[in-house]
Amino acid sequence: MTPVPYETVTDACLRALEDIVGPENLVPRDRLPEEYSHDEMAPVCGWAEVAVFPATTGEVARIMALAHAHRIPVTTRGAGTGLMGGAAPVAGGILLVTGRMDRILEVDEANMVARVQPGVVLLTFQEAMEERGFLYAPDPGEKSATIGGNVMTNAGGMRAVKYGVTRDHVRGMEVVTADGSVLCLGGKVAKNASGYNLMHLMIGSEGTLGIVTEITVRLLPLPEVLTTLLVPFARAEDAVALVPVLGKAGIIPQALEFFRRDVLESSTDYLGREFPHGDAPAYLMLRMEASSPAEMDRLIDRTGHICLDGGAEDVLIADTPERQKALWDARGAFLEALGWTDIDECDVVVPRDRMAEMMAYADRVAEECGLTFSSFGHAGDGNMHINILRGDLPDGTWERRRDAAMERIYQKTAALGGMVSGEHGIGYSKRAYLRAHTDPVELELMRRIKDGFDPRGILNPEKIL
Amino acid sequence: MTPVPYETVTDACLRALEDIVGPENLVPRDRLPEEYSHDEMAPVCGWAEVAVFPATTGEVARIMALAHAHRIPVTTRGAGTGLMGGAAPVAGGILLVTGRMDRILEVDEANMVARVQPGVVLLTFQEAMEERGFLYAPDPGEKSATIGGNVMTNAGGMRAVKYGVTRDHVRGMEVVTADGSVLCLGGKVAKNASGYNLMHLMIGSEGTLGIVTEITVRLLPLPEVLTTLLVPFARAEDAVALVPVLGKAGIIPQALEFFRRDVLESSTDYLGREFPHGDAPAYLMLRMEASSPAEMDRLIDRTGHICLDGGAEDVLIADTPERQKALWDARGAFLEALGWTDIDECDVVVPRDRMAEMMAYADRVAEECGLTFSSFGHAGDGNMHINILRGDLPDGTWERRRDAAMERIYQKTAALGGMVSGEHGIGYSKRAYLRAHTDPVELELMRRIKDGFDPRGILNPEKIL
Repeated sequence: MTPVPYETVTDACLRALEDIVGPENLVPRDRLPEEYSHDEMAPVCGWAEVAVFPATTGEVARIMALAHAHRIPVTTRGAGTGLMGGAAPVAGGILLVTGRMDRILEVDEANMVARVQPGVVLLTFQEAMEERGFLYAPDPGEKSATIGGNVMTNAGGMRAVKYGVTRDHVRGMEVVTADGSVLCLGGKVAKNASGYNLMHLMIGSEGTLGIVTEITVRLLPLPEVLTTLLVPFARAEDAVALVPVLGKAGIIPQALEFFRRDVLESSTDYLGREFPHGDAPAYLMLRMEASSPAEMDRLIDRTGHICLDGGAEDVLIADTPERQKALWDARGAFLEALGWTDIDECDVVVPRDRMAEMMAYADRVAEECGLTFSSFGHAGDGNMHINILRGDLPDGTWERRRDAAMERIYQKTAALGGMVSGEHGIGYSKRAYLRAHTDPVELELMRRIKDGFDPRGILNPEKIL
Repeated sequence: MTPVPYETVTDACLRALEDIVGPENLVPRDRLPEEYSHDEMAPVCGWAEVAVFPATTGEVARIMALAHAHRIPVTTRGAGTGLMGGAAPVAGGILLVTGRMDRILEVDEANMVARVQPGVVLLTFQEAMEERGFLYAPDPGEKSATIGGNVMTNAGGMRAVKYGVTRDHVRGMEVVTADGSVLCLGGKVAKNASGYNLMHLMIGSEGTLGIVTEITVRLLPLPEVLTTLLVPFARAEDAVALVPVLGKAGIIPQALEFFRRDVLESSTDYLGREFPHGDAPAYLMLRMEASSPAEMDRLIDRTGHICLDGGAEDVLIADTPERQKALWDARGAFLEALGWTDIDECDVVVPRDRMAEMMAYADRVAEECGLTFSSFGHAGDGNMHINILRGDLPDGTWERRRDAAMERIYQKTAALGGMVSGEHGIGYSKRAYLRAHTDPVELELMRRIKDGFDPRGILNPEKIL
């Protein structure tokens, strides 16, 4: 709990909130399910005094006006799938859940954009767009996340190597500010050079600068032909070293993932499925796009030769939807297979030609700290998820070793020109590392932005800064 | 001149500036060429007390520390090719010219990024990258602009329809803040979710939040095959209406331009060249990319059928580099052919399916206001350049009619869900329109950002806000 003198949610406030959202859309503390006290990274935990489930922008605006007048903290929660404690209401107050704001408001085919409410679930949205012949390109691993959560963490995901991150697909948003004003930023337009871009500042701000209540995203044509290549390697270094070679050759897959056998095995065990050629020490997995079958053949041929020249043991082609799904399901289950409660994670990003060095360093840190790591990465963009597994370590030892290992990993990341977070954000649990590895002048400017947007400090307190 | 009590550049300050950049890289007011008092839009004019030409980040930092201590305005100028008076030193003080910071510092092929100084000229950089097999995708029409200027206005250009704007290609930057601190934002990394993204806030801030001293941009593989299609139409409406149809069919050209005969004729007259099929009332011009000649044939065939079905009179294919160059040279000369001193411009952007409506409205405004417009547009992204020509109008009448016309155009833009500026920025000359068509709460947040980054108000005063 924070020492800052926020006001508590009085009975009068509860009645006012009930007036806004209706009594059926408000849950007071004593009836609040445990899950609302944390996100997927359960150790970061805090209890709200009340949870509200608004359905409209107007309701969100009235909630914020009330919270602002009374100086009550407001933490926004989408699907609660974050990994940094960003949605944990650590300062108490109001938990604002976007789950009822789950409508796809418009699919504008002429402008190739869609307008959605923040609580729309990613998978639901992706599938709805595919049915209409469109690709929504951002593809974070956690498909049950909300689009609002994706925008507020600038989620990345597997297709970032070709299509960029969530930021690159947001065209406009409606935001409720700390005092309950409603702002429209951007729109359906493809270009904008009209003053400071507050929309891009909001993206990735994790609910600390405003609450997004509507999002306009761009849509792309669906690729005509998709094929997945699974490329086993005897040496992990060869796999990672191949990534820049492919890029320089003009081969930009839709997704380009790296993993080792240990991670794969825990995933296939978890799913109870076989994996083709499952005994190699390391793999690259590439999802390729082409505009015709002939073009795909040419692309596979070129890619295959480059892989084999670079030390690959084989190049396996999965060209039916079923085979491709089996491979990507295994990839998708990596994190889940590790279990949730007894891991912590570094979501570092480095220039992609430094990934091999980062991996080797992580191996050494694990050994020297007496820890088990399970790491995999979006090789195409240098983003690695280094998962630290607790195993049987007792209290105290676990925290000590974990913290020592993390500090070394973040130091190495900085030395390699990387960043503390590639795509999971800072939230609550990575604040100390952001502070330690960011220029104090930059932190001070972030602080001034926060003060300018939220002078009473009520928006998602104790997050990021 | 501004009423704010800035200090003037004293003899002691001049000597200190000489110490920093060397006497040969400082030009005092009495020897300052006239061109340094304005950008391409000459009516916005102001004289600096001194111009300095630093060569390094360290020099820029020392200049800013001095300016901050003495509260002297600093206006940054790249190549001076802006159209909104952004580089005009309207508050006097120091003009900081980036022309000597013109080095390509690094081309990192493994990570497919380049690091450049801000004064590198766009064309020089594009050509240098092409020689190494890379595409720098942003392609604003003004090739003699600097990369620094492009970043600070978030310049768009013709390839935005496929590749996005300058923002989408910046990976990192070094910035000198108002008080002379040096910040590194982003880097060579492809993803970043590490706190508020100050880099994206800097992009498009027109030198009012900091001075960019180094830029890391991403590079793409060069497309294998390029072909240009010139598509004449009997009716301008048909041309514009075809744009969303192409998008929905999955055809995303590298560039997709719209123009009418009057603009084309003034350009070909200016260049003294013929244009094929130059007598149609309206045109679309498409630059297509494909990964093989066979793929290009297929793409041209599909595109051609869609165009002919949509009312095109013909589809002319320019497949040699020379023929393509002739077409794009004519397009590139549109603005220059109009002459500089006697025009003003609206750089509006609307959702692309509203372009036809915007065009028709602009025609009506021209007629009703007794003005001649010369308009053309990046049809693929809804960005229109509506140029208002003075002709023989006397003083007073010109300003009155122009202002009335602009006000109506910006009102219509807002009504269509568009923005005041698509790619040229706000600078000095469009401030009133930004103010009139932006939510006061949004403007207040911009103002707080400005105050946070530049509390003494010395960075490019009187611009944007």
